[in-house]
Amino acid sequence: MSDILIPFSEICQSLTTILRSYGLSSERAEACATLFAKADLDGVRSHGVNKFLKFIEFIRVGNVNPSNEPELEGSIGVFERWDGLLGVGNLNAEFAMSRAIKISEQFGIGCVALKNSNHWMRGGNFGWQAVDSGKIGICFTNTKPNMPAWGGSEPVLGNNPLVIAIPRKNGPVVLDMAMSQFAYGKLENYLRSNKKAPFPAGFDEDGNLINDPESILKNDMALPAGLWKGAGLSLVLDMLAATLSGGDSTHQVNRTGSEIGVSQVFLCFDPLKLRMDKWIDHTCDAIIENLKSSKVFEGQKIFYPGENVLNTRKKNKIQGIPIDKKVWNQILKELES
Amino acid sequence: MSDILIPFSEICQSLTTILRSYGLSSERAEACATLFAKADLDGVRSHGVNKFLKFIEFIRVGNVNPSNEPELEGSIGVFERWDGLLGVGNLNAEFAMSRAIKISEQFGIGCVALKNSNHWMRGGNFGWQAVDSGKIGICFTNTKPNMPAWGGSEPVLGNNPLVIAIPRKNGPVVLDMAMSQFAYGKLENYLRSNKKAPFPAGFDEDGNLINDPESILKNDMALPAGLWKGAGLSLVLDMLAATLSGGDSTHQVNRTGSEIGVSQVFLCFDPLKLRMDKWIDHTCDAIIENLKSSKVFEGQKIFYPGENVLNTRKKNKIQGIPIDKKVWNQILKELES
Repeated sequence: MSDILIPFSEICQSLTTILRSYGLSSERAEACATLFAKADLDGVRSHGVNKFLKFIEFIRVGNVNPSNEPELEGSIGVFERWDGLLGVGNLNAEFAMSRAIKISEQFGIGCVALKNSNHWMRGGNFGWQAVDSGKIGICFTNTKPNMPAWGGSEPVLGNNPLVIAIPRKNGPVVLDMAMSQFAYGKLENYLRSNKKAPFPAGFDEDGNLINDPESILKNDMALPAGLWKGAGLSLVLDMLAATLSGGDSTHQVNRTGSEIGVSQVFLCFDPLKLRMDKWIDHTCDAIIENLKSSKVFEGQKIFYPGENVLNTRKKNKIQGIPIDKKVWNQILKELES
Repeated sequence: MSDILIPFSEICQSLTTILRSYGLSSERAEACATLFAKADLDGVRSHGVNKFLKFIEFIRVGNVNPSNEPELEGSIGVFERWDGLLGVGNLNAEFAMSRAIKISEQFGIGCVALKNSNHWMRGGNFGWQAVDSGKIGICFTNTKPNMPAWGGSEPVLGNNPLVIAIPRKNGPVVLDMAMSQFAYGKLENYLRSNKKAPFPAGFDEDGNLINDPESILKNDMALPAGLWKGAGLSLVLDMLAATLSGGDSTHQVNRTGSEIGVSQVFLCFDPLKLRMDKWIDHTCDAIIENLKSSKVFEGQKIFYPGENVLNTRKKNKIQGIPIDKKVWNQILKELES
């Protein structure tokens, strides 16, 4: 895999142009392109430009409706329920988080449940969106089945990513974790470079824990993070997303053979309205200071969730964003067509 | 370890009598005793009667103030912040969840943050409390440091239990999980019976993953569930608990050498007020039906979180609750003194 470095603005412009040709308005095309580019800017390459062509394909075959915007289904002060109308996943999610932010400014807490949406790509974007407006943001999504239950020999659970983001002047804390121990994108990288995962990553066909990515990838048998614990957490996140939104749950999301119509929840706390502004920074600073002062095993270093994002972002802004050359050439081709 | 079977009511009565002699009012003594007994009734023996004498010791040395009740610090509609005044942990938590339930009935969502509380014993009790009143309940607590950070060679993170409970007519779903892969109580059981944990359970002194409980127990080096993922989740739960409540974080909880003054969060959603009552049961039933119909590896069976509790509860109600004979004798001694 060889990379080229592309400036952030060039990625945004190129993707925007393509998205406009697929029926997104100028404004929505730019917002959608920016969310893709931000993933790469922050070093989350698995969920940025690398996923763009598949996303375009989803528009082409009608899985994603490029012009549909979320419709309000119901509202009761602190809580809103929206129908994503199978629109653009990352735009729907950004909109839902913006509503949760607004509601939290009024009531202290804001919650938005969204049904019939599509893959939000990089979930961390919406955590950063919350902390950039000074809010604590929590969001999660269900996915198609891609992990076994604990004891199960076929995929029935989603890896249902969970994002928890806490604002901090000296660097926000943004946890962005799927419920599988390793992302499938990571396992594909191991396979391509003929490596094994550094820890058990899934099950073979007899139910043994294995590090070898090949059969895990073939059978969608990724290991739930924390074994039975990640399996349990995945199940309840799916239940919360599907029941709060009134939308589909993991076992329904894949019924057409494609992952469409996911359910998501966005929850915000406004530290100002909740009168936590006097201590929130001090408390978080002290926790991180304590964490960073921990003794470590030889050669190890401790990072808090999100810490590396700011460094990567800074570097990529200066020197350009590394993009897979092959992928970029395909995007240039799409741009010309 | 040999057990005797004691009826639920006898456990409640005995513990109530002891608690009254330590200064709890009749009503509070009974409520506190019932929460201890419920843990054993539901089969969560690590956090019931087995912990009672240590709890009494905490009252005796002044770590727990038996007569203090929570004091309201601030309120803004959907959110309340309470000071636990170092009172009785399980009573404080039950009170906080009851407030979250009440608030959710008014606003759809209710959130209570509690500082300066004490060990809530079995967290699952408060999940069952929420579902018993028809609410979705989420709660979590921080603890003293008892797990290393990812890469760290000393405990700096708490195992910070997280409870997510979803009401369902055919059996609620109640996830009650600490962030360590194995509870210390479980590791002690393995050690006592000269067994190894069935999966890696912590680190040895060189940072290797090990199944042998001895050195893990000696050094408080339990494995975060999901490796770096459980470590990250533990950190953000501590941040949420400490910042929302304005209370202590994990690194402060143990400063006296005892685990006192923990921070907790209780969050409820009222399905009725949020107009989810039309579909919540149907959605959860379908998810569980799908889960239970999964193909399994040979000899395996799939359970949803909380499923076994109802069976155990039923059995224990009929035949009596298994209690460690030694522990029960100590309780009888305490009762006579």
